[in-house]
Amino acid sequence: MSKGLPKRSEDYSLWYNELVKKADLAENSAVRGCMVIKPYGYSIWEKMQAEIDRMFKETGHSNAYFPLFIPKSYLSKEADHVDGFAKECAVVTHYRLKNDEDGKGVVVDPDAKLEEELIVRPTSETIIWSTYKNWVQSYRDLPILVNQWANVVRWEMRTRFFLRTTEFLWQEGHTAHATKQEAIDESVQMMNVYAQFAEEFMALPVVRGIKSESERFAGAVETYCIEALMQDGKALQAGTSHFLGQNFAKAFDVKFATKEGKQEFVWGTSWGVSTRLMGALIMAHSDDQGLVLPPKLAPIQVVIVPIYKGDDQLKAIGVRADEIIASLKAVGISVKFDDRDTYKPGFKFAEWELKGVPVRIAIGQRDMENNSVEIARRDTGVKETFSLADDLTAKISGLMDEIQESIYNKAFSFRADNTRPVDTYDEFKKVLEEDGGFISAHWDGTAETEEKIKNETKATIRCIPIDAIAEEGVCIYSGKPSKRRVLFAKAY
Amino acid sequence: MSKGLPKRSEDYSLWYNELVKKADLAENSAVRGCMVIKPYGYSIWEKMQAEIDRMFKETGHSNAYFPLFIPKSYLSKEADHVDGFAKECAVVTHYRLKNDEDGKGVVVDPDAKLEEELIVRPTSETIIWSTYKNWVQSYRDLPILVNQWANVVRWEMRTRFFLRTTEFLWQEGHTAHATKQEAIDESVQMMNVYAQFAEEFMALPVVRGIKSESERFAGAVETYCIEALMQDGKALQAGTSHFLGQNFAKAFDVKFATKEGKQEFVWGTSWGVSTRLMGALIMAHSDDQGLVLPPKLAPIQVVIVPIYKGDDQLKAIGVRADEIIASLKAVGISVKFDDRDTYKPGFKFAEWELKGVPVRIAIGQRDMENNSVEIARRDTGVKETFSLADDLTAKISGLMDEIQESIYNKAFSFRADNTRPVDTYDEFKKVLEEDGGFISAHWDGTAETEEKIKNETKATIRCIPIDAIAEEGVCIYSGKPSKRRVLFAKAY
Repeated sequence: MSKGLPKRSEDYSLWYNELVKKADLAENSAVRGCMVIKPYGYSIWEKMQAEIDRMFKETGHSNAYFPLFIPKSYLSKEADHVDGFAKECAVVTHYRLKNDEDGKGVVVDPDAKLEEELIVRPTSETIIWSTYKNWVQSYRDLPILVNQWANVVRWEMRTRFFLRTTEFLWQEGHTAHATKQEAIDESVQMMNVYAQFAEEFMALPVVRGIKSESERFAGAVETYCIEALMQDGKALQAGTSHFLGQNFAKAFDVKFATKEGKQEFVWGTSWGVSTRLMGALIMAHSDDQGLVLPPKLAPIQVVIVPIYKGDDQLKAIGVRADEIIASLKAVGISVKFDDRDTYKPGFKFAEWELKGVPVRIAIGQRDMENNSVEIARRDTGVKETFSLADDLTAKISGLMDEIQESIYNKAFSFRADNTRPVDTYDEFKKVLEEDGGFISAHWDGTAETEEKIKNETKATIRCIPIDAIAEEGVCIYSGKPSKRRVLFAKAY
Repeated sequence: MSKGLPKRSEDYSLWYNELVKKADLAENSAVRGCMVIKPYGYSIWEKMQAEIDRMFKETGHSNAYFPLFIPKSYLSKEADHVDGFAKECAVVTHYRLKNDEDGKGVVVDPDAKLEEELIVRPTSETIIWSTYKNWVQSYRDLPILVNQWANVVRWEMRTRFFLRTTEFLWQEGHTAHATKQEAIDESVQMMNVYAQFAEEFMALPVVRGIKSESERFAGAVETYCIEALMQDGKALQAGTSHFLGQNFAKAFDVKFATKEGKQEFVWGTSWGVSTRLMGALIMAHSDDQGLVLPPKLAPIQVVIVPIYKGDDQLKAIGVRADEIIASLKAVGISVKFDDRDTYKPGFKFAEWELKGVPVRIAIGQRDMENNSVEIARRDTGVKETFSLADDLTAKISGLMDEIQESIYNKAFSFRADNTRPVDTYDEFKKVLEEDGGFISAHWDGTAETEEKIKNETKATIRCIPIDAIAEEGVCIYSGKPSKRRVLFAKAY
């Protein structure tokens, strides 16, 4: 299976694409820019969803559902928003087809033209704030803490599996508050929820930070984000949380009566993560043999492969496997017994490596005689013979934690090794070209400098880290004074 | 709260609409025919989804995700399918907006016209079978047992909350099999899964049956369904499961190599339930005071309302409530303590009745003195004083089962009382007009008779029940011979 997988060192981009296809995560569809998420890929996304949804509920949020379509005029109500979003959208203009006169197919019925075109939501601030207007009269109606799981469409010219597709799946939280501080606290809280999810479940260390003005969400006052580093030294924005100020409240006239009876505009936030996280997960940990999945998100945590000759041996191994499966399932570990007789063990080994199953247990005839099994870790490739006189369930259970931690630590070390402070623009360009990674540098805080650096090097400011320490310095580009370092990188 | 709710006997349709709005289940959106599912309504849908999804997985299915858009030409590939579905669809013709020249908004960019229009999926057979073509080469690749949770759009002229909306949420299962029998078995299995869900969780008795040819899904060889009876005597189709034969395999050229090396077309099924189930749930059980939710789908199963004067009393009741909440949560019962100081107990009672919470516990000062609570059942309205010297958790736990069963039994009796065998067309028309409900009658099996009855009475054949017994008779309309009775009703 992995034979067909290019090496990361040779062509990282091709490696990623082939891995997504060969590991049965996703494939291109007949519709340009839209992918099919295959069952194996979707089962990882489901595990992500379940954890994220749980974290949302623990922080007081409820789910709801708003329309797929947005009236065209809504997009222009918030001035910055329309500049950022209204351009590349799928536009519904008609609501009916009719039989072609040649009888061979269907054509759009020109009589069924919509009075106002509908946009397939690229994000839902406008339709949701137009709804909130009816939900909010007084301070008693606040806060509104709502999230929706939905599909959205942004007409992308260049697409890449999970990272940038015309249609993608995501969640978008939209909250409304009585005070500015409460809304800011909410935005920060959700950035932290995302960071916690990325680190605990995806085993992905992230930098928490604030976007520069140019990189801010269209319509936001402040954008908080989590940024991760991929193995090719490029950064990936993994989640964003926006403090919207009163921008959308003003655009849609959403006011509330305070306790004192005054009318005030509501404060808002929005925040989202998407199937892009799948791309981050794949790119951060996988290797030339295929996926490396952290146990907490692996749909299959353990695979048991029998090595046998003839039905009798298979049957005996099957009995042993059943015992192991029962005891692992009892402690919540998912196991697959791969007893397909159409494939050889070597093929199966390669296939489950490609699919990133954290632990493989092989049971052969000698193992049966010795009352042992062979345990192989996907992340390190280390194999060991384990005696069944010892507690296998405890062993595997411990391995799950160990592998989860080990994958995180590896990614953490990689990021540490690839985050470099630089103090001159020459050094900046050199590091960017030779090493990539995050570059920590002083910046004068102007959009002008930011854009020049971007145009000259393709590096963008990923974020101003939340924990950046005050440090007097001079901008690497303009030489003007700077009060803290920011993180630059080329990014997905 | 319930004051504003019309009585069912006065205007059933208005009662339903008002109930949906007042109980915070859904509301109309700015987009014609599309509704907003509000958090309380969505939380019921989430409970439905969780159980249905579990049942799908237990029967071997996996989830996946296919594109929202379908190329227009795909719809015409299966001849019957296009007739049934291609007409009232949302059509995407452009992919970009641009600033209006007057600077005041955005307009569709005429340069961004799609070569081939895209249809927002009304159902996904075509895009999925075009994908399955690449997934299937040999019998080893079968069966494919895939489901997707998705939004779909059918441009409806007359819409009604949950029952018929332009956009709605659903699941659609699409399976592919090597043999005809296996595909038929799958279709029947999924009808049974739906029936089991409706009866066990929704407390909704359903008739399992087969659709007549006229009512069959466009592109199916056989449509299995579950049909339920609402309180106004109208039937509601709650779920369908289609045996597709080789129709879509032929339309999309999906063949497989058999074990013997022959090329054969694949056999297919598709099956779905939607947010329509919400409508069924509401209409089947609710009363003039509001929703009546079966405990297994109630987002809040128990509400505790304190009746107090002053903070000291509230504080003491709060301590008692906390103990009750802890012990109920420990056995998996969801509880809300409604300690809002902005509303009076009477208002809260009415609100939770409106929202269908199965059990209300009221705690007043006298209860505190007597070490008791008042327990009220939403379904029967029966109240009792319960001594906390007894086991409250066991009591409430038992009530959950009792209420679930009682709601089911009530609906079952209602259906039994409203299913009437008739043997003449005059009687048929009389029963239909005076009583409504299901009418069990002989039919000659022709589409012609079926259509005449429909045109003359608005009653349709809901299904040929799976358990219909062979019985010689004559068609109530044509007098021609018939071998079994079928179920007629006016339907949603």
